[in-house]
Amino acid sequence: MNSEDTLKRLKTVEGHLRGVIRMVEENEYCIDIIRQIQAIEAALNKVSSRILEDHLNSCVITAIQGNDKKERERVLKEITEVFEMSTKV
Amino acid sequence: MNSEDTLKRLKTVEGHLRGVIRMVEENEYCIDIIRQIQAIEAALNKVSSRILEDHLNSCVITAIQGNDKKERERVLKEITEVFEMSTKV
Amino acid sequence: MNSEDTLKRLKTVEGHLRGVIRMVEENEYCIDIIRQIQAIEAALNKVSSRILEDHLNSCVITAIQGNDKKERERVLKEITEVFEMSTKV
Amino acid sequence: MNSEDTLKRLKTVEGHLRGVIRMVEENEYCIDIIRQIQAIEAALNKVSSRILEDHLNSCVITAIQGNDKKERERVLKEITEVFEMSTKV
Repeated sequence: MNSEDTLKRLKTVEGHLRGVIRMVEENEYCIDIIRQIQAIEAALNKVSSRILEDHLNSCVITAIQGNDKKERERVLKEITEVFEMSTKV
Repeated sequence: MNSEDTLKRLKTVEGHLRGVIRMVEENEYCIDIIRQIQAIEAALNKVSSRILEDHLNSCVITAIQGNDKKERERVLKEITEVFEMSTKV
Repeated sequence: MNSEDTLKRLKTVEGHLRGVIRMVEENEYCIDIIRQIQAIEAALNKVSSRILEDHLNSCVITAIQGNDKKERERVLKEITEVFEMSTKV
Repeated sequence: MNSEDTLKRLKTVEGHLRGVIRMVEENEYCIDIIRQIQAIEAALNKVSSRILEDHLNSCVITAIQGNDKKERERVLKEITEVFEMSTKV
């Protein structure tokens, strides 16, 4: 996985989240807080997509080109699962 | 693709959608209509997941086990794209 | 509710959905089908937002300006509920 | 706004996010990381819903019962906007 890019993005999200916590502490306007939370979620979606992309281009290729049928099925099942979950969060 | 199951699910969604159109024509309560639209979206998410599952277990395996590097990259890129889009709809 | 605009949008979605059913019947490429389903969901989200907007500007205003506290709580609770559900579909 | 509950929830999310950052640093399995990110998003959705609920029961009621038509329109428009955005993240 391209950990550096992922880490950088997640640390940005962490800073963003701390900003939101401060907004709540300072009693800022509810809708502004919700909008910032939505921005955080959009950023997290982006991170997940990047991680999935790396995963497809490493583990998934290895598993599918390998001889272990069970392992192949496992990695493909996981992708369907995170896809399905992504439609729910 | 397991077309029969997919077709059956999509036709159920079509019936559901016609029901929603009727609800609008008969001026039913807004919130009830929104809830039915959300149920349709949940059903569509389910259909997409099933289609993706079939796709992974057919085209994607074939492409990754094949010798065409470009084709391999293409199918993996598509999966990241539909995943990313799934977080937006 | 602005039924005419809503009806028009929903009938467009119905046509779009029929197109997707045809794509499945004609064994078109899985990813293309998923993309069309995602486009349908985006359109449905748009419809829900319009319906909610109308609802806020009619029923919700009436309820909140009325004297029935229970009714007021009910309409506000419903909005939170469809919002929460919208994050899940 | 019920700031205490919101703050507590957001701080839990912050801890969760730090855990995810650690998972990335320790090179944990991609899919496990994606799942944790999705769990964070589900928690954030919950926070947004709670904030919206409080907002409806305070600012929105005040605005709608008040005499300022512009202000009334503004608060209702905002709700439609965060609803629409919630279908996109």
